[in-house]
Amino acid sequence: MIKVVILGSGNVAIHLTKAFLKSKKIKVIQVYSRKNNPIFFIKKNIEITNQLNKLKDATLYIIAISDDSISRFSKQLNLNNKLVVHTSGSMALQDLQCNARKGVFYPLQTLSKNAKVSFKKIPICLESENEKDYKLLEKIANSISTKVYKVNSEQRKYLHLAAVFVNNFTNHLYKIGHDICTEKEVSFAILKPLIQETAKKIKHLSPSKAQTGPAKRKDIKTIKNHLNLLNKKQQEIYKLLTKSISHLPIL
Amino acid sequence: MIKVVILGSGNVAIHLTKAFLKSKKIKVIQVYSRKNNPIFFIKKNIEITNQLNKLKDATLYIIAISDDSISRFSKQLNLNNKLVVHTSGSMALQDLQCNARKGVFYPLQTLSKNAKVSFKKIPICLESENEKDYKLLEKIANSISTKVYKVNSEQRKYLHLAAVFVNNFTNHLYKIGHDICTEKEVSFAILKPLIQETAKKIKHLSPSKAQTGPAKRKDIKTIKNHLNLLNKKQQEIYKLLTKSISHLPIL
Repeated sequence: MIKVVILGSGNVAIHLTKAFLKSKKIKVIQVYSRKNNPIFFIKKNIEITNQLNKLKDATLYIIAISDDSISRFSKQLNLNNKLVVHTSGSMALQDLQCNARKGVFYPLQTLSKNAKVSFKKIPICLESENEKDYKLLEKIANSISTKVYKVNSEQRKYLHLAAVFVNNFTNHLYKIGHDICTEKEVSFAILKPLIQETAKKIKHLSPSKAQTGPAKRKDIKTIKNHLNLLNKKQQEIYKLLTKSISHLPIL
Repeated sequence: MIKVVILGSGNVAIHLTKAFLKSKKIKVIQVYSRKNNPIFFIKKNIEITNQLNKLKDATLYIIAISDDSISRFSKQLNLNNKLVVHTSGSMALQDLQCNARKGVFYPLQTLSKNAKVSFKKIPICLESENEKDYKLLEKIANSISTKVYKVNSEQRKYLHLAAVFVNNFTNHLYKIGHDICTEKEVSFAILKPLIQETAKKIKHLSPSKAQTGPAKRKDIKTIKNHLNLLNKKQQEIYKLLTKSISHLPIL
């Protein structure tokens, strides 16, 4: 049984603990929480502390707190020679500023508070200072997910950036689609199957090969018609993305 | 049994015919094809003609050809008093220039040549000149899809435009994510579950509520870090979309 201590009690801490509870190889023996009443952990009968000098002896310490706080928080840890990881996509391994063995355990997914998440399919990106620690992290990650990847700090930084495009920015395009529908009193539900299909296509086809539409066809007539229907802000986005797809100079 | 003639032999014609073949209420009695050898229809033993004056008597004539050709093509039809529809998202009902009763039968989906498509979940947007024809179109649409909507020409134009945002532009964001990964030799596969989740979220949550990320949080530090990692073209897109989400003036 591998003993794990979770430092933090937010979304990521909760989702990780839920996943570990299902694994027979891992036991969350303690949670560090500054919150007075971390309901989820109380319900699950997991020991809670709010004092860093009361941390129990464990194989792995997982810092699951906001990106900004990781460096400052890690300085307070006194876990010499223990393995400490953070769970952030945008922070480097070296942002952990403690005398411990360092690593990263980054689950790449949008983890909302109430959303049910099957960790099995969530990619976990791992990094460590040495091969032995990597093997340990790999074992732990494999116990909750089927998708485990070795990703260094430089790569992870770019991965996190790419995620902004495919997740945050994509969602904003859904929002613009939603706005256009609302304006004309058309049900946004009509677009939902198309949204699913667009995402599904990418499972087996590269985005380059999956590209369709007026910009791809360099269909200037339709492009101009569309621009006439949009407000200024939407026009700017339509133009820039169409230019990026089509390489048409005229826009 | 409702008799249907399909005018055209491309993707939409093939996918529609496939769907009708599964329905017991509809029979495709003839296909008009300018192509000499429309393999799919030959295989299915459907009568083929390349002469418009040989069109058979049917309840519905479905024009499934490229948007640009619809007006010109419809002028050649001599189908007085018959019900004729086109299948285009961007053309108006009145773009049908024949003496027939006019309608629109628009399946909103990306229909690729070899992709297997279950028509059951594809929204079909209908329009007609009168209520009786609408009822007929509705009956036919309901026989192949569970998602049938009444959408007028003005609304359909905007729906088609919204589809460009949620489908074509979204795919381009996937492409940028792919480019970033390739550049840093990270597997794009790591992002695929996130892409699926982003699309799935929208089934039950409005895009506004689903929005996350540095732009939403107005996290200027991360935004600036990200901009430093991108090339010029990517920066432009990142800035514009971040500005649109965050309303931050500084970018």
